[in-house]
Amino acid sequence: MKTVKIDLGARSYEVRIGRGILGRAGEILPWIEGAQACIVTDQIVAERYLAPLRAALADGGKEVTECVLPGGERDKTLDGVSRIFETMLRARCERGVSVIALGGGVVGDMAGFAAACYQRGAPFIQAPTTLLAQVDSSVGGKTGVNHELGKNMIGAFHQPRRVLADTAVLDTLDKRQFSAGMAEVIKYGAINDAEFFTWLEENIGAVMAREHGELEFIIERACANKAQVIERDEHENASGGGRALLNFGHTFGHAIEAGAGYGNWLHGEAVATGMVMAARMSARLDMIPAEECARLEKLLRAAELPVAPFAGIDADGMLDLMRGDKKVRGGKLRLVLLRALGAAEVVEDYPPEALREIVAQFTAGKSA
Amino acid sequence: MKTVKIDLGARSYEVRIGRGILGRAGEILPWIEGAQACIVTDQIVAERYLAPLRAALADGGKEVTECVLPGGERDKTLDGVSRIFETMLRARCERGVSVIALGGGVVGDMAGFAAACYQRGAPFIQAPTTLLAQVDSSVGGKTGVNHELGKNMIGAFHQPRRVLADTAVLDTLDKRQFSAGMAEVIKYGAINDAEFFTWLEENIGAVMAREHGELEFIIERACANKAQVIERDEHENASGGGRALLNFGHTFGHAIEAGAGYGNWLHGEAVATGMVMAARMSARLDMIPAEECARLEKLLRAAELPVAPFAGIDADGMLDLMRGDKKVRGGKLRLVLLRALGAAEVVEDYPPEALREIVAQFTAGKSA
Repeated sequence: MKTVKIDLGARSYEVRIGRGILGRAGEILPWIEGAQACIVTDQIVAERYLAPLRAALADGGKEVTECVLPGGERDKTLDGVSRIFETMLRARCERGVSVIALGGGVVGDMAGFAAACYQRGAPFIQAPTTLLAQVDSSVGGKTGVNHELGKNMIGAFHQPRRVLADTAVLDTLDKRQFSAGMAEVIKYGAINDAEFFTWLEENIGAVMAREHGELEFIIERACANKAQVIERDEHENASGGGRALLNFGHTFGHAIEAGAGYGNWLHGEAVATGMVMAARMSARLDMIPAEECARLEKLLRAAELPVAPFAGIDADGMLDLMRGDKKVRGGKLRLVLLRALGAAEVVEDYPPEALREIVAQFTAGKSA
Repeated sequence: MKTVKIDLGARSYEVRIGRGILGRAGEILPWIEGAQACIVTDQIVAERYLAPLRAALADGGKEVTECVLPGGERDKTLDGVSRIFETMLRARCERGVSVIALGGGVVGDMAGFAAACYQRGAPFIQAPTTLLAQVDSSVGGKTGVNHELGKNMIGAFHQPRRVLADTAVLDTLDKRQFSAGMAEVIKYGAINDAEFFTWLEENIGAVMAREHGELEFIIERACANKAQVIERDEHENASGGGRALLNFGHTFGHAIEAGAGYGNWLHGEAVATGMVMAARMSARLDMIPAEECARLEKLLRAAELPVAPFAGIDADGMLDLMRGDKKVRGGKLRLVLLRALGAAEVVEDYPPEALREIVAQFTAGKSA
C-alpha cells in the first residue's frame, strides 16, 4: 500500500495505491460526507467492479445511485454528461451528493465534469480502473468533454476528495490499454525524472509482465511527479514551466487523435507517437542529442507503443489541427520540448520550417 | 458614477454604475488582458447596444467575436451554451479570450457558464442590460443553465473581472422587465437592509418613473447588500445564514416558474409572489407581525408585481417542485424566512402543515 499526497491547500487529497482497495469500505466511506453517493461507470467496468463498490457503500448506509455510460471517447460530449445530470436529478441527488468515477479516463473526465457542474459543484471521488487513469487523468482535477471542433475544449478544474488506485484491476486490463497507460508513465520520466526514466529502461520487462510491486512503484512515482508539477500550477496559468510541461507529446498527440478521428487511436498511443515527434523536434533544434531521442523511442517500443509515421492526415492538416489546439497563446504555437531526458521546457521561439519538417516526416505520403 | 467593490481576495472586482458607461472604452479595455474578446448577447439587445461596444473594443485593437443568442429562459440549456462554444471554437478563441455578457440574466448566466467551461476557464466581464441583471444576477459569480428537471441545476461559480451597469439602458427597458428587477431590489431591503426598505417605500414613485439619481442609488445599494452576503459565503457553503439568504422568495418562486412552465412568468415576478408566500409563512410562524407582511405586499404592488394566488399548479404539485429544488439538504426543505423586515434567516424546523396551508392559499382551486 502506498500513498501520494497532493498538496493544494484546502483542496489537498491523497492518492491511495494498493491491491484490492476498491472493496475496502474503510478506504472510501470516511470520504463521503452526505447520505448520497452516485457511481458513474461504463458498461464493461460495471460488470466487473460495480457490485462490490455498491455493496460497500450500501453497507455503510449510503443511498446509492448508478449511472452506467456506454463508454468510449465518442460518448465524451456535453450530451453524454447531460445523461449523468438526468440520472442524478431523477434520483433527487442533492448538492452534497458524492460523485464517484469508477472507470478509465473517459468516465473520470465525464463524471468529474458532472460533479463540477451539478448544482454548481458536488464532491467527487476518483476510482480509476485503467493504468492511464491511475497514473494521470485521475490526479490533478482536470475534467471535461470533447467538442466536435476539438478535444477537451469544455471542462472545469474540480479536484477529487480522494483517489483510489486499485492495482488488482490491472490484472485484467486489455493489453493495448495497458500500453497506452505506459505512455504517460514514460512521459513523467522524460519530462521530470531522469532517474525514473533509467529505472523504466531497466525494468520494462517486469512492468510489462505486470509484476505487482513494479506496478505499485510506477503508479506511485508517476503520481508523485504529477503532484510536483500541479502543486506549482494548479490551474495551468504558469506561462513557462508548470502544468504546461505535462502536455509533452500532447499537442502532436491531440492532432493525431483529431486527424484520425477520436476512437481510432487510444489517447496514450497518440501521445507516444507525439512524444517521439516532440523529441525529434528537440533534437532538430539541438536541445538534446539524437541518442536521447533514440532511448525514448526504444522504451516506448518496449512498452508496445506506436512510434512510426501514420496514415489519415497530411502535414498541412496536422499543422492546422495543432494550431487549433488550446495550448496556442497569442497565435503562436508553443511546444513542450526536451532539454534533456528528464527535463522539459516550453519553447515558443523556433523556426516554423523545423516543425513542418518533423510533421512531414511522420505524415508524408500518408494523406487520405 | 458609483462604484461597489466586491471583495473576494484574488477574485475581487468592481461594479461600475453610471449613465452611458457601456460606450466608454476606458471602462472596459483595461480589463481585457488578451487580444481577443467574445461578446455574447441576444437578438433584441444586439440591435440596440452591440454596435457601440464592438466599436469600442475594435478601436482598442481587440479581435472581436460575436455570439447572438435567440434569448429567453427556454434557450438557457446545455444545448444553448453548446452553440456559444461552437462560435468560439470556429473563431479560434484562445483560452485567454475575454467573454463579455451583454444582456439580461439569461445571457449573463449562459455566457458566464460558457466562460467558466471554455478550455476550463476564460476571463469574464458582465455588461448587464436589465435592472434584474444589474442588481442581482451579474454580481456574485453564479452562472449556469436549466435542465428540464429543474432550474439552474447545472452551472459553476465563475466571478466576473468587472461589472458595467449602464443606467441609460434602463430608459428603454420593457415595463414588465423593469418591475421584475424591482422584485430583487426590494428583496435586498427585506432580507438585509431595513433602512433601504423604508427608503424604497418613500421613493417608489420616483424609482418607477426611472429618475436617474434614484436608479443609480438602488443599483448601488442592492449591489452593496449583495456584496456583504457573498463576501461571507462565496460558494454557498454556509449552512445557516450566508448566501442562502439571497434565496428569500426563490424556493417558492422557482416552483412557480417550473409549475407554470419557464417563460410564462418572469423570474422576478415569480420571486415577488414567492416573497409574499415566504412572508406569510413567517407571519404564520409568528416570526413577524402581519403588518410587516402587508408592508412588503404593498411595496411589491407599487412596483407593479404580482402578489396574488396563481393558476397552473395545485398545492401537491407545488410542494413536490419545492422539494426538488436544490436548497433541500438531507431531505428537509429549508426555507428562508423573515424575522423582521430587513433581516432574514434559514428555518428548517417548522410544522409541515403550516407550509401546506400557505401553499394551498396561493394555489387552491387553481390546478390546471
